[in-house]
Amino acid sequence: MQAPDVEFTAPDEQYCQRTEKLFYDMPFVKFLDLKIAGMGPGWLDCQVINRPELQQQNGFLHAGVIATLADMSAGISAATLIDKDHSALSAEFKIVLLRPGLGERFIARGRTIKRGRKLSVAESWIYGVTGDKEKLIARGYLTLAVI
Amino acid sequence: MQAPDVEFTAPDEQYCQRTEKLFYDMPFVKFLDLKIAGMGPGWLDCQVINRPELQQQNGFLHAGVIATLADMSAGISAATLIDKDHSALSAEFKIVLLRPGLGERFIARGRTIKRGRKLSVAESWIYGVTGDKEKLIARGYLTLAVI
Amino acid sequence: MQAPDVEFTAPDEQYCQRTEKLFYDMPFVKFLDLKIAGMGPGWLDCQVINRPELQQQNGFLHAGVIATLADMSAGISAATLIDKDHSALSAEFKIVLLRPGLGERFIARGRTIKRGRKLSVAESWIYGVTGDKEKLIARGYLTLAVI
Amino acid sequence: MQAPDVEFTAPDEQYCQRTEKLFYDMPFVKFLDLKIAGMGPGWLDCQVINRPELQQQNGFLHAGVIATLADMSAGISAATLIDKDHSALSAEFKIVLLRPGLGERFIARGRTIKRGRKLSVAESWIYGVTGDKEKLIARGYLTLAVI
Repeated sequence: MQAPDVEFTAPDEQYCQRTEKLFYDMPFVKFLDLKIAGMGPGWLDCQVINRPELQQQNGFLHAGVIATLADMSAGISAATLIDKDHSALSAEFKIVLLRPGLGERFIARGRTIKRGRKLSVAESWIYGVTGDKEKLIARGYLTLAVI
Repeated sequence: MQAPDVEFTAPDEQYCQRTEKLFYDMPFVKFLDLKIAGMGPGWLDCQVINRPELQQQNGFLHAGVIATLADMSAGISAATLIDKDHSALSAEFKIVLLRPGLGERFIARGRTIKRGRKLSVAESWIYGVTGDKEKLIARGYLTLAVI
Repeated sequence: MQAPDVEFTAPDEQYCQRTEKLFYDMPFVKFLDLKIAGMGPGWLDCQVINRPELQQQNGFLHAGVIATLADMSAGISAATLIDKDHSALSAEFKIVLLRPGLGERFIARGRTIKRGRKLSVAESWIYGVTGDKEKLIARGYLTLAVI
Repeated sequence: MQAPDVEFTAPDEQYCQRTEKLFYDMPFVKFLDLKIAGMGPGWLDCQVINRPELQQQNGFLHAGVIATLADMSAGISAATLIDKDHSALSAEFKIVLLRPGLGERFIARGRTIKRGRKLSVAESWIYGVTGDKEKLIARGYLTLAVI
């Protein structure tokens, strides 16, 4: 994991509550059972416990779950910087699969690298975690429209 | 939807059975309840019926489901061209979200645009379908490693 | 090449002149000697004659030139739909290199697939041309911010 | 700029000479006048002095030059890890344009994040430099086929 080039400040005092609500209000997030693991201005970590129904034919985490972790961590990291009158919607993202998705759980660390008035850009590092060892399994790169 | 620039031939007579098995052997595919809707050499259509647990906070299809549909349709379209001694693994993909994910069901049409010895490249068109009307909601672009 | 899913109409009568001016006002376009080969609402074809200084170490067209052709054809295809009070700026793009960049000349066919109020999305097909034979060498996928 | 997650070792003692030759043997690199600014196992920095012919209509660095800097820095960073019997070819890349391309010169810092037997993955940070101030103007994400 790598720290971002920039320091961000929160748009207001309610950003944590607003971000949590946004995250957990998504039925698909509940269906996969993703959880927020940490949050601050411009960053969000989320995780999921590994279980068979999230896997592909070889027992690795399915690319669709990896994409969901990348989209949620990077996208909601950008949402932490948005005030209550705006919202940030994913416009496009790229996912690179680096290693087999193995681990007891998976953690995605989303970091905003640019907060613009029209577009925000964020990245995600997705790790498989076993015991206290983290292994980078994928990267995600996201563009969001601010509206 | 658009026809590919190239015509492909199947690697052998068992490719349909092999492709179906590959598709339905993925627990995550069963969990989301994706179904194959059509198949041929170099192409695969798959679909899913809309239901609340696949949605985000506004009732639109979640980007993670769109990514899964894109990955499965494009990736398995490339797998139809792979003989029984090889396999094709997603290396990276890009998803572009064009319109809100609305519809009674969603169909993703995956088309291989290049079948290489080392890398295959495939694309996906993802539509929201209501009655007999299809609306393009997203595009997916996939690179696979042939191993 | 593939026709777009949608038909676009020009924003006004001056769009051709405006688009030509935009294209040829870029010093880097002149430096590479790119030329417009055709244009209409939502599409633009541009080309360049092959010459050694555009190549990499094996005599193939350099990926940077391919990216320039993709960006110019797709980006300016979106610009044809923009009225005189707005502009469309490339926000991000993906380039896929499919085959070696060989040919007497190269033509890039850019097609807008969505014209939005905030974002436009466009694609490009890049061909190597020898005599009257065209071979697809790369694909480009572009997101633009409308401002 | 951010350090990579991994430490790489050079494939042999000649890798620097081989990498320099590879870089400067590309006619397009000479045409743009790119220069290597630093190199080690898994990383390469390259730069170009700003001049009008590299710009677009507003005087910003053209996206095609940014793509070239990203491709060369990330791609050649992966090439430093390849022995003399193999080579690494760009398969696809994504470029994100973050800020206007302004500066006296531009430096692209390429870092390999995975060196695989079939595929390598590398990233680039592209900065506009004025005096001793560097400003991140773009990011690049590259997949290479090792052959």
